[in-house]
Amino acid sequence: MSSTARMRVIRDPRAVRRQIRRWRTRGETVAFVPTMGAFHRGHLSLMQRARRVADRVVVSIFVNPAQFGPREDFAAYPRNPRRDLSLARREEVDLCFLPDTAALYPEGMTTEVRVAGLEHRLEGRTRPTHFAGVALVITKLLHITEPDVLLLGQKDAQQAVILETLVRDLDLPVRVIRGPVVREPDGLAMSSRNIHLDVRQRQAAPVLWRALSAARAAARNGERSAARIKAIVRREIRKERQLRLEYVALVDARTLEDLKTLRGRVLIPLAARLGRTRLIDNVEFQVDGGRS
Amino acid sequence: MSSTARMRVIRDPRAVRRQIRRWRTRGETVAFVPTMGAFHRGHLSLMQRARRVADRVVVSIFVNPAQFGPREDFAAYPRNPRRDLSLARREEVDLCFLPDTAALYPEGMTTEVRVAGLEHRLEGRTRPTHFAGVALVITKLLHITEPDVLLLGQKDAQQAVILETLVRDLDLPVRVIRGPVVREPDGLAMSSRNIHLDVRQRQAAPVLWRALSAARAAARNGERSAARIKAIVRREIRKERQLRLEYVALVDARTLEDLKTLRGRVLIPLAARLGRTRLIDNVEFQVDGGRS
Repeated sequence: MSSTARMRVIRDPRAVRRQIRRWRTRGETVAFVPTMGAFHRGHLSLMQRARRVADRVVVSIFVNPAQFGPREDFAAYPRNPRRDLSLARREEVDLCFLPDTAALYPEGMTTEVRVAGLEHRLEGRTRPTHFAGVALVITKLLHITEPDVLLLGQKDAQQAVILETLVRDLDLPVRVIRGPVVREPDGLAMSSRNIHLDVRQRQAAPVLWRALSAARAAARNGERSAARIKAIVRREIRKERQLRLEYVALVDARTLEDLKTLRGRVLIPLAARLGRTRLIDNVEFQVDGGRS
Repeated sequence: MSSTARMRVIRDPRAVRRQIRRWRTRGETVAFVPTMGAFHRGHLSLMQRARRVADRVVVSIFVNPAQFGPREDFAAYPRNPRRDLSLARREEVDLCFLPDTAALYPEGMTTEVRVAGLEHRLEGRTRPTHFAGVALVITKLLHITEPDVLLLGQKDAQQAVILETLVRDLDLPVRVIRGPVVREPDGLAMSSRNIHLDVRQRQAAPVLWRALSAARAAARNGERSAARIKAIVRREIRKERQLRLEYVALVDARTLEDLKTLRGRVLIPLAARLGRTRLIDNVEFQVDGGRS
């Protein structure tokens, strides 16, 4: 039997736990890739990485209402489960977990999980409840799937820092691996939301990566002033009139603390609006003689 | 080799996880009894119950600073690890986990876990940060010990409800069992804090249980008014001048919602001060034809 025919698609959390425990009882290791579906090559690269680090690959597809604000795009978020399942099969995923909202958020739920010190920075300023929703759902999904390895995308760098902090603070028995940002040939970071861009917006969008690349290049050439680096990003992005920069920051990649002077591992995250679509991107690199 | 000689005493969380995983790999089940030490027969009864429901019994002893308010008795809380270890050995406990505070709360911890809807009721009114501290430490301990069964004492009824809610809301893969309140012959609920009572206070303290028993007797005789049941409790307690009742409530035993009329499963929790010692107690019973 070919491996593509064997992918299990399960909605019931208890059935997911039972299946995964059967594997673990046999001594097999499990890697888990939580997603909101609408797969692009970024997701697939995480599944490929998962395939390499564990015996079994579990992917969840769940557009998590708790991480969308009341005026955000929960309803409009792209959904295409049939295509997703077919792509997951091609990546030899062993189990796709498609929970119903009612199964994860039954009536009367009142427990909160939050990485308090990090949830209101950067993305959290305009999305104040977002990371509490992420922390809650990932905690639940980790309890259901009990994986050895959790795979997270660098595209959502703040999310990755927050979830690594969560895992460490709560002693969750899982190793976290981050996969790199996967980009289109013109540099635009892969995102499920890119399909909302019209042709002109799509042409403008790669300026985000050009701006971040210019910032990194300046740092490599010795620039150490965060203010001047951020000015470079703003100047680049202004070249595309359609884009409205929401923020650009320059922070310590581990603590997300603002830096005035570049040192150590540096993260430059940004968010911008292109029409009604909100895009994020980032670049992370080492200064002071380290590798980028 | 006798079983009492085999109890492991481990301080390092990673070593605890390794040991427990070895047992689980062999197919053995694990029951976990989290405690703050200073064992009395209430703790021991939980260990005995644990012994009956699982192959391995793990007990943690940790006076959790996060669940004490700044003006509470963290420093004065009784500690007697040598006696505790000897008692645990006698109960054939397999592993005693004695974490250092620095191991559970390293610098920079910023994650919070709270059962938001229940943490500020009853005990939470005078102890506003208490249950957030309990929820955090139990989440961590469950991640370290990964037990099949978690044993909780009915003495801390609100804590038990909160932790059952936490387990359910977060899909924690553990079954919760509550052990009954264990009492002295005169009815005083066993508590590590009872050793702070002087002779006269010790003589007065059983009025709490007499008051709760009178409330239950009234309910059994058909009284359904929460106000009148609480009046009975207050009247009884007033007979002991030394006691200052902090609160008595009459709530749904599952949701902790205030009841005006008794129905279903009812919990009557109370807290009182005897000098500088704060005591809690409760009675839980079924009305409307159920068993008490």
